Amino acid sequence: MREALAEAAFQLFLERGFERTTVDDIVARAGVGRRSFFRYFPSKEDAVFPDHERCLADMTALLERGDDPDPVGAVCDAARLVMRMYAANPEFSVQRYGLTQEVPGLRTYELSVVRRYEGTLAGYLRRRWAKAPDGGLRADVVAAAVVAAHNNALRSWLRSGGEGDAEAAVDHALGLVRGVWGEPDGPGGGEPAAEHVGAAEREKAPFTLRGGDPDVDPEGDVIVMVASRKAPLWRVVQSVEAAMAAG
Amino acid sequence: MREALAEAAFQLFLERGFERTTVDDIVARAGVGRRSFFRYFPSKEDAVFPDHERCLADMTALLERGDDPDPVGAVCDAARLVMRMYAANPEFSVQRYGLTQEVPGLRTYELSVVRRYEGTLAGYLRRRWAKAPDGGLRADVVAAAVVAAHNNALRSWLRSGGEGDAEAAVDHALGLVRGVWGEPDGPGGGEPAAEHVGAAEREKAPFTLRGGDPDVDPEGDVIVMVASRKAPLWRVVQSVEAAMAAG
Repeated sequence: MREALAEAAFQLFLERGFERTTVDDIVARAGVGRRSFFRYFPSKEDAVFPDHERCLADMTALLERGDDPDPVGAVCDAARLVMRMYAANPEFSVQRYGLTQEVPGLRTYELSVVRRYEGTLAGYLRRRWAKAPDGGLRADVVAAAVVAAHNNALRSWLRSGGEGDAEAAVDHALGLVRGVWGEPDGPGGGEPAAEHVGAAEREKAPFTLRGGDPDVDPEGDVIVMVASRKAPLWRVVQSVEAAMAAG
Repeated sequence: MREALAEAAFQLFLERGFERTTVDDIVARAGVGRRSFFRYFPSKEDAVFPDHERCLADMTALLERGDDPDPVGAVCDAARLVMRMYAANPEFSVQRYGLTQEVPGLRTYELSVVRRYEGTLAGYLRRRWAKAPDGGLRADVVAAAVVAAHNNALRSWLRSGGEGDAEAAVDHALGLVRGVWGEPDGPGGGEPAAEHVGAAEREKAPFTLRGGDPDVDPEGDVIVMVASRKAPLWRVVQSVEAAMAAG
C-alpha cells in the first residue's frame, strides 16, 4: 500500500507537477481512501522521498552496532547507505532529482533530511569523542565534511543521469575526508586516500617519505617525513596518511 | 521603516508566538500599511532574520575583493562576518535563538540561509580551485567544514546566553579547519591552529618535530617529522601544521 501510494504520487508529480497534484489525486490514482495516505506519509513531500526514514533507521542501527576502532570510517560507512539507496533505483533517483530541482519546497525538504543524516553522524562522533579535546567541535566538522563529500559524489552521479559507478564515486569522495580526519589504525582506513596520494604524487611531489626507520624503532612503527614548508598542507597530510596506512 | 517593522515583528513574536502573529498585527504595531511589510520582507520568516541578506552581500563582496593567497583563510574570514553580525546584538540574537528553537518553520528557514552561506563559500573555493584535482569536491568539503565549525561556536555562544568572547570562540573553531585544510603560506594562516597543537602536545605528544633541518635545506624551508604510526592522524596533522607555520 505504501509503495503503491508513493508510486502513484510520483507518477502524478511527473505528469502534472508537484504543486498541482493534490493528495486527493494521489489516493484516487492509487485506489485507496484519503486517510490511507496520511497513515503512511505526513505530507506530500514525504511521498517523494519514501525511503529516507528507513535509511536513517539503518544508519542509526549500523552506528549502534559497536565501537568501531575508526569512528570516521564508521560514519563514512554509514553515509554510504544513502548512496546505496539512491543507486538501487537509478531511474527513479534521476527523475526525482530533476523534480527536486524544480520545486523549492522539495529542496527545503531535502535540506531538512540532509540535516538529519548529518545530525545522526555528528551524534555518533560526539559520543565517541566525548572525552577528546574539542570532541563536539570535531564531531560537527567531520560529520559536515562527510555529508558534503557524499553529496558531491551523489550530485555528480545524479547529474550524469545515473551513469557510472556510484559506489566508486562516493568512495573516492569519502577518501578525501578520511585521509584528513580518519584514524590510520582503523580497519580498511586509508585505502581510498592512498589512491588520492598516488595521484598527487604523480603530479607534483613536494615532499619525500620513508616508512619505518629501523634506527628509530626496530618494529617499524615510526614514519619519518621530510616536507617543504611551501607544500600545501593537504598534500602533506595525504602523504602522511598514506605512509601511516602502508604498514 | 524596515528596522521598525523588524522590531515590531520581533516583539510580537516574543509576546504572542510566531505562528499566532499575523502580518496585519505587525503592520498595525509598526503603524504602517500592509504593503509596506512585503516591500521589505518576502515573508514573516524573513522579518525574524532581517540582516542575513546584507551579510550575504558583505560576504560576497569580501570574497570578490581579491585573490587571497590562502583561499581557506579567506572563507574563514568570510564566515566570521556571520558571527560578528550575531555578536553585534547579543540580547536580540539570544532571544531569537530561543524563538527559533520553538518554531519548526524558523529552523527550516535558518537551514536555507545556512545553505546559502555555504554555497557562497563553496562557489568561491570552486573558482579558486578550478584547476586543482578534485577542486570541486574539496571546495564543497571545506565550505561545509567551515560552516560547521562556525556554527558550533555560534551555537555554544548563543546557548551560553551570549556570554564570553564570540570572536575568540569562532577563531578557535575555525582554527581546527584551517589547521587541516588551510595553506600554511597564507597570511596569518595557522595561528589559531598553532594554539590547538600546543594543547595537544601538552597533553600527550605521540611524535617529535624538528623545524628547518640545515642538512636538507640551508634556508630552513623544510620540516622533518618523526611520528608513531599509532598516533591519531589529526594530532600528527596539527603538529605538521604548527611546524610549517612556525617559520
